[in-house]
Amino acid sequence: MDCNGAGQPLLSGAADPTHQTKNAYAPKGRRFRRCKSAPLADFVAPDMNGNEKLPRSGSIFGKHHPNFTRVAVYLSVYLGMGTLCFYMVKTQINGKKTNGILDALYFCIVTMTTVGYGDLVPDSTLSKLLACAFVFAGMSLGGLILSKGADYLVEKQEILLVKALHRNQKVGPTDILKEIETNKVWYKCLLVSILLLVHFLVGTLFLIFVEGLSLVDAFYCVCSTITTLGYGDQSFKSTAGRIFAVFWIPTSTINLAQLFLYIAELNTETRQRALVHWVLTRKMTHVDLEAADIDDDGVVDASEFIIYKLKEMGKISQEDINEVMEEFEELDVDQSGTLSASDIILAQNSQTKR
Amino acid sequence: MDCNGAGQPLLSGAADPTHQTKNAYAPKGRRFRRCKSAPLADFVAPDMNGNEKLPRSGSIFGKHHPNFTRVAVYLSVYLGMGTLCFYMVKTQINGKKTNGILDALYFCIVTMTTVGYGDLVPDSTLSKLLACAFVFAGMSLGGLILSKGADYLVEKQEILLVKALHRNQKVGPTDILKEIETNKVWYKCLLVSILLLVHFLVGTLFLIFVEGLSLVDAFYCVCSTITTLGYGDQSFKSTAGRIFAVFWIPTSTINLAQLFLYIAELNTETRQRALVHWVLTRKMTHVDLEAADIDDDGVVDASEFIIYKLKEMGKISQEDINEVMEEFEELDVDQSGTLSASDIILAQNSQTKR
Repeated sequence: MDCNGAGQPLLSGAADPTHQTKNAYAPKGRRFRRCKSAPLADFVAPDMNGNEKLPRSGSIFGKHHPNFTRVAVYLSVYLGMGTLCFYMVKTQINGKKTNGILDALYFCIVTMTTVGYGDLVPDSTLSKLLACAFVFAGMSLGGLILSKGADYLVEKQEILLVKALHRNQKVGPTDILKEIETNKVWYKCLLVSILLLVHFLVGTLFLIFVEGLSLVDAFYCVCSTITTLGYGDQSFKSTAGRIFAVFWIPTSTINLAQLFLYIAELNTETRQRALVHWVLTRKMTHVDLEAADIDDDGVVDASEFIIYKLKEMGKISQEDINEVMEEFEELDVDQSGTLSASDIILAQNSQTKR
Repeated sequence: MDCNGAGQPLLSGAADPTHQTKNAYAPKGRRFRRCKSAPLADFVAPDMNGNEKLPRSGSIFGKHHPNFTRVAVYLSVYLGMGTLCFYMVKTQINGKKTNGILDALYFCIVTMTTVGYGDLVPDSTLSKLLACAFVFAGMSLGGLILSKGADYLVEKQEILLVKALHRNQKVGPTDILKEIETNKVWYKCLLVSILLLVHFLVGTLFLIFVEGLSLVDAFYCVCSTITTLGYGDQSFKSTAGRIFAVFWIPTSTINLAQLFLYIAELNTETRQRALVHWVLTRKMTHVDLEAADIDDDGVVDASEFIIYKLKEMGKISQEDINEVMEEFEELDVDQSGTLSASDIILAQNSQTKR
């Protein structure tokens, strides 16, 4: 298990300069500085949990993220093998031909993205089965790009967008990071919408001026391609068109898929925020108080309150709590209901004996 | 805000007969019966958080879920409007025609799912723009079906699958629910894979015996359709074929998309479980003990331990905690560091005065 990086999250968190920005979210520190003493504010298991956000420090500065490198390698292998295979069966593919290698690559891209114009179609058992294999592999790869690679690129560009938007105001890098943290998904939506608009414009203009389509046909071909519909009555027929398509089709289709993903994320986040607001502002009753009192001492302390409210928000479940409680009982060797230094030593000794 | 249903989760949870099964997950109750007293074990905000699992009681028994009804209504409106629009411009659509209404519905389905064979293609500005509009609306609808409707149907069928698999063993409904709860995503993958196999078989056999394709062509057409590739060299050309396609295309394409989603979910869950295991089994050190001690009393009680570990698992963040702490400080009017009945009364009075 490769979670060595998670072994010292407290120390690494403290050494991280971007960590400072977190303070902006700390409560208006009255008495409860104590809650800041809890560690792991930025805990992210590096390769363990694919759904975790990247730690800020890793995603903005420094080298490429390992996930991203992996996606790039898979994509290169896929396109390399695809082009080679389809080039070797090029006589078994019918349709409008230009350059042999280019057509094979173009066919590979059109298949991978499931656009499937049909301007080139496999015409033998072998080429048909190859196309079947490459479309399934292409869909998996598309999913991988969406989940591991594309989001990473958007997060990198997000910084530039927010900086550009706040160009006229005096803001430091800390404020930029804070602004992104607060409205992350919204900025992603905005960025991806702008990119999609650029894809639309560039694609339409290219089809008008290079492929010689009318405005309506160009727009229709762009829509048909970006959505992976690909009726095939309009497609990229010239050499220049296919060179353009090889770059434009994958980026534009991924772009639209991302927009849909981010809109869904924004939607979920908005509802989640409304729920959090509702949970936090509703009146506590005596029933709540009694229910929140985990150790039955008649009062609810800060930790009990936090667990109660987070559970109500749906962020943690009873099963999560039960799992941790089992571990707590193991560690609490003297059965005092609290863990102290002596418990730790006793527990370690008993583990060593086992 | 429609969170009225969340107002009495404690009571509704207690009145729920399926709730009994939760006890199976409670810790091997030694001293800590106390943690069971915490409420909201099944708290789910019904319409607030789309990502939440449905409460078991709602998803298995009883009426259809509101999300599902909404998806069904949207789909009917989309197909109704689509068929009407494309029927009205039927003279502006070129290609192999059968029955007017059927062709319009078939074209609508082929567009909505982004299969886009191209056996029927729009041939006027109006029909092209209509196709553009319907493909974008169709993609959004597809996303909605995937996120709100399809999962609900799979969860309903999951019960039947698990019952069938355990037919020969003596198991009660409680055991079935427990088994599903533990291996939920795995059963979903299995179920959707079986359904996909059925779609493959039925589609291939239909194309061989009704459309008269060869085995390879039929398989190739099924692959090309299910993945929404749709080159269009093979498609449904007869009246019977198009009637079949109208039902088979949407269900099979959604089916494959679901399989990809569940595989991703399974992947994430496996890594999440590995992380939970690692967090729970790693040795507590004195540094951990100090860090977990939120109220600085030198010992770590159960609630502090739970918060510390859940944070380490990445299930809750410092921001979540800070938000709740702010509310706690508001409520803790006498600044005792604990909430008691008197705090609640004081807080309510001060809120009334405001």
